[in-house]
Amino acid sequence: MRVAHRLGDIACQTGVRLVGDADCIISSIAVLQDAAPGSISFLSNRKYRKYLKTTRASAIILGPELLEDCPANALVSDNPYLVFAKVAQLMTVPPTIKAGQHASAIVAPSAQIDASARIAPGVVIEDNAVIGARVDIGAGCVIGAGCQIGEESRLVANVTLCHEVTIGQRVLIHPGAVIGSDGFGLANDDGAWVKVPQLGAVRIGDDVEIGANTTIDRGAIKDTVIGDGVKLDNQIQIAHNVEIGAHTAIAACVGIAGSTKIGSYCTLAGGVGVVGHLDIADHVHFSAQTLVTRSVTAPGYFSGNLPAVPNNVWRKTIARIRQLEETTQRIRDLEKQCRQRQCEDPDRDAAKQMHNAKIE
Amino acid sequence: MRVAHRLGDIACQTGVRLVGDADCIISSIAVLQDAAPGSISFLSNRKYRKYLKTTRASAIILGPELLEDCPANALVSDNPYLVFAKVAQLMTVPPTIKAGQHASAIVAPSAQIDASARIAPGVVIEDNAVIGARVDIGAGCVIGAGCQIGEESRLVANVTLCHEVTIGQRVLIHPGAVIGSDGFGLANDDGAWVKVPQLGAVRIGDDVEIGANTTIDRGAIKDTVIGDGVKLDNQIQIAHNVEIGAHTAIAACVGIAGSTKIGSYCTLAGGVGVVGHLDIADHVHFSAQTLVTRSVTAPGYFSGNLPAVPNNVWRKTIARIRQLEETTQRIRDLEKQCRQRQCEDPDRDAAKQMHNAKIE
Amino acid sequence: MRVAHRLGDIACQTGVRLVGDADCIISSIAVLQDAAPGSISFLSNRKYRKYLKTTRASAIILGPELLEDCPANALVSDNPYLVFAKVAQLMTVPPTIKAGQHASAIVAPSAQIDASARIAPGVVIEDNAVIGARVDIGAGCVIGAGCQIGEESRLVANVTLCHEVTIGQRVLIHPGAVIGSDGFGLANDDGAWVKVPQLGAVRIGDDVEIGANTTIDRGAIKDTVIGDGVKLDNQIQIAHNVEIGAHTAIAACVGIAGSTKIGSYCTLAGGVGVVGHLDIADHVHFSAQTLVTRSVTAPGYFSGNLPAVPNNVWRKTIARIRQLEETTQRIRDLEKQCRQRQCEDPDRDAAKQMHNAKIE
Repeated sequence: MRVAHRLGDIACQTGVRLVGDADCIISSIAVLQDAAPGSISFLSNRKYRKYLKTTRASAIILGPELLEDCPANALVSDNPYLVFAKVAQLMTVPPTIKAGQHASAIVAPSAQIDASARIAPGVVIEDNAVIGARVDIGAGCVIGAGCQIGEESRLVANVTLCHEVTIGQRVLIHPGAVIGSDGFGLANDDGAWVKVPQLGAVRIGDDVEIGANTTIDRGAIKDTVIGDGVKLDNQIQIAHNVEIGAHTAIAACVGIAGSTKIGSYCTLAGGVGVVGHLDIADHVHFSAQTLVTRSVTAPGYFSGNLPAVPNNVWRKTIARIRQLEETTQRIRDLEKQCRQRQCEDPDRDAAKQMHNAKIE
Repeated sequence: MRVAHRLGDIACQTGVRLVGDADCIISSIAVLQDAAPGSISFLSNRKYRKYLKTTRASAIILGPELLEDCPANALVSDNPYLVFAKVAQLMTVPPTIKAGQHASAIVAPSAQIDASARIAPGVVIEDNAVIGARVDIGAGCVIGAGCQIGEESRLVANVTLCHEVTIGQRVLIHPGAVIGSDGFGLANDDGAWVKVPQLGAVRIGDDVEIGANTTIDRGAIKDTVIGDGVKLDNQIQIAHNVEIGAHTAIAACVGIAGSTKIGSYCTLAGGVGVVGHLDIADHVHFSAQTLVTRSVTAPGYFSGNLPAVPNNVWRKTIARIRQLEETTQRIRDLEKQCRQRQCEDPDRDAAKQMHNAKIE
Repeated sequence: MRVAHRLGDIACQTGVRLVGDADCIISSIAVLQDAAPGSISFLSNRKYRKYLKTTRASAIILGPELLEDCPANALVSDNPYLVFAKVAQLMTVPPTIKAGQHASAIVAPSAQIDASARIAPGVVIEDNAVIGARVDIGAGCVIGAGCQIGEESRLVANVTLCHEVTIGQRVLIHPGAVIGSDGFGLANDDGAWVKVPQLGAVRIGDDVEIGANTTIDRGAIKDTVIGDGVKLDNQIQIAHNVEIGAHTAIAACVGIAGSTKIGSYCTLAGGVGVVGHLDIADHVHFSAQTLVTRSVTAPGYFSGNLPAVPNNVWRKTIARIRQLEETTQRIRDLEKQCRQRQCEDPDRDAAKQMHNAKIE
């Protein structure tokens, strides 16, 4: 639900400079190209700048460099997207959760459920689980034995926590996420695989968000640990014993193999793969689909992907890449020939001298 | 369940030319290499042509160019796979769904459920959801508040629709799919991440198929939109605000980042990644594991992957790729040396003249 | 739960040579760097060798080459990880499952459930399913019509088996896995897609492990088949008609396209993609994120990825890769120039002779 606000109040509550009419009433949020009067919009990605001139939004959050081109009231900030986040939070009333357990939920007698928590229909909560104040457990979630969920955390629906998973406060977990499944621990016994019991747990910090169908395995011996403020998108795979530092953000479809440590304040773009047993420093960034095979000891930005080109161009490029060994040999041969010529320079010098003699 | 048919009737109902015995009774479907008498098979991928000669199938769907090699009755078509699809549909009786709500389903009083719909055991349907005629909601599905599901759609089992998701008619959604989870909207506030409320919804067109454990996020402001006839395989990730045009087919493990538009009649092979804020034209095709980093403005076929080779070959290739900067410098040096020699041509001309003089 | 053992008994039961005090009591398991007295640890990855000297573990499983550096009792083996697996199994008491169906489970009257099986809360079991002895079906699982689950298999929670899926004995399936969803079978009819009914089933062998949110599609005509002892990590996608040979292990985020056969004793590292209709021999290994586009007829190790480098280095490399066609042309030009010079050798010989004549 959206709540209308005076633009001046919005500016005040988000601590941003207003250029324009403080009494303008803002009742909706829209992108520039679709905005109707009464709506607030924002411009943070220059790809959308083309819509600025013709937008019908009543207010626009933008950077100071765009102020003179702004056709409406302006909220001016060096971080328009952050201001937009705050404005959207301000204008959105979250649904109030109705405390209590639905009759269809199956809660083990030994579980401790705070009276202010909501347990939705079809939820199963196993032995000795502890559910904190104002926690919201959506329909179909399964909470394994010995799990602990901190205050105000929300599991949207059909989330599975295996046994002994600890979730911090204000954590948001989207549907289909699985936390605490066994790590992929296998020892080879003459070809066949022997399961290594996965004896560790999973610990999730405060203010973490975990996307739909993301999986986080329990540790083999030590715990798998997700730091405070970490944000995980959908369909991410976190293997056993991984540790992720605070405030790292990971986009969809990333896979992180076992025992790797990712630092704090890192970003991993979509589809990145990180092999096991690496140590990635703080403030390291990886671009989309990059494969990380070595530890990174200092902040930096790393890449390793090959962007799409037309297929006929690509076929030629692939062929050339396949020939690189041979190509290098051809260069070596050329260099050798050139060196041989240079050894023969005396002759050429002789020729030069004779030439010079002639023209003298 | 399979239903037996006269081959002549099959030809007639699928509109295909029959060469052979119209009275042959076809009672089963098989691949060429496993077919027994009484079965119908097809040949559309030339990799399987080797099985044509020895198949025991009673009828084979194939292209006209293969007719003379066909050892059985033939249904002749330029699109054998399409004919096979129709024959398989003809011979397969779908299970009839038994209308009504199972006693264990939890349906909010404000939800509107058509009397012809089936609501399976353990389903949860939240406030104000609207379920159309002959819809089949399988066991364990969660339908969020305000969702709408069009006629004859089927959610197989354990599907999660978050709030305000709209599903068209004849849509088929496989288990574990999550539709309408929050997009990954984060603004950075001096290192920490601030959640951007995800205020849009998801709209799915008619005749869409959505694979197992595929995730489709709700829009940040605008809706995420999946066009009519779109086919999505398993484990696909569609981020917030993405729009996918009609009749586009996307194979498994593809990720499409936020605000990207994919045109109509496109195909994305398995594992493709498309970064955010791109605009992909109609009739564009991407091969497996390609990373798409730029908009595509016209139809075409794009690639960007590096297929597997033996590891020892690959190690050398990788080394050569790493040296490309240096390699280019070596070529530049060689070119320079060659140019210098050419400048010295006068000497060489002199030598030539002298030589010529001598042999005169 | 961990159970204390005499070290001599551990050595005896795992068949490993003990160097040290057989009466030492081992009550816990720990990694080298965290071990306290009373715990057993192991060293199999040389990255962790640095912790050997200072560990406080009472016993360490390690290779004979490390024995002289071992500061504690030693269990000596050429395969320390395998021994560790056995020790961990020995010391871990699995929770006993309480046979019987929870009152909230919905079991079709035609289903056959062995009296020793456990059916947890919220489980749905459909018509004619057959559940074997000591099977453990966790909360929220859906077992489709006609499924068969062999003795001692365990579905942890929220697993979905579609209709007619056969599971062998001692199979372990983690939450969110979906087995038997429709394959992605589509025939193109002038732009629009026509569904090919997926008439096959899925057959899973004995001693298979299937990770969280992994998906295995049913066959189009033939079955999809997973051999005995196969181990599948999380978020793997197995398409229709795929066959995977015994004892093959596949890491997370791998996708295998339709009708491909993977041999026995193969390993696929994380993020590998295999296109359809290939035949991969036994004992083939693929490194992380490799794309496999051709059949492999003999054992071997294959790769095709590009590991991460600093972005500024990568930008140059990408540019050079894009120029490879042009680079090859430049080499060709150089070679041509060199050849032309060699044709002019007579002149140079003449010059040489003159030079020689002069110095004579």
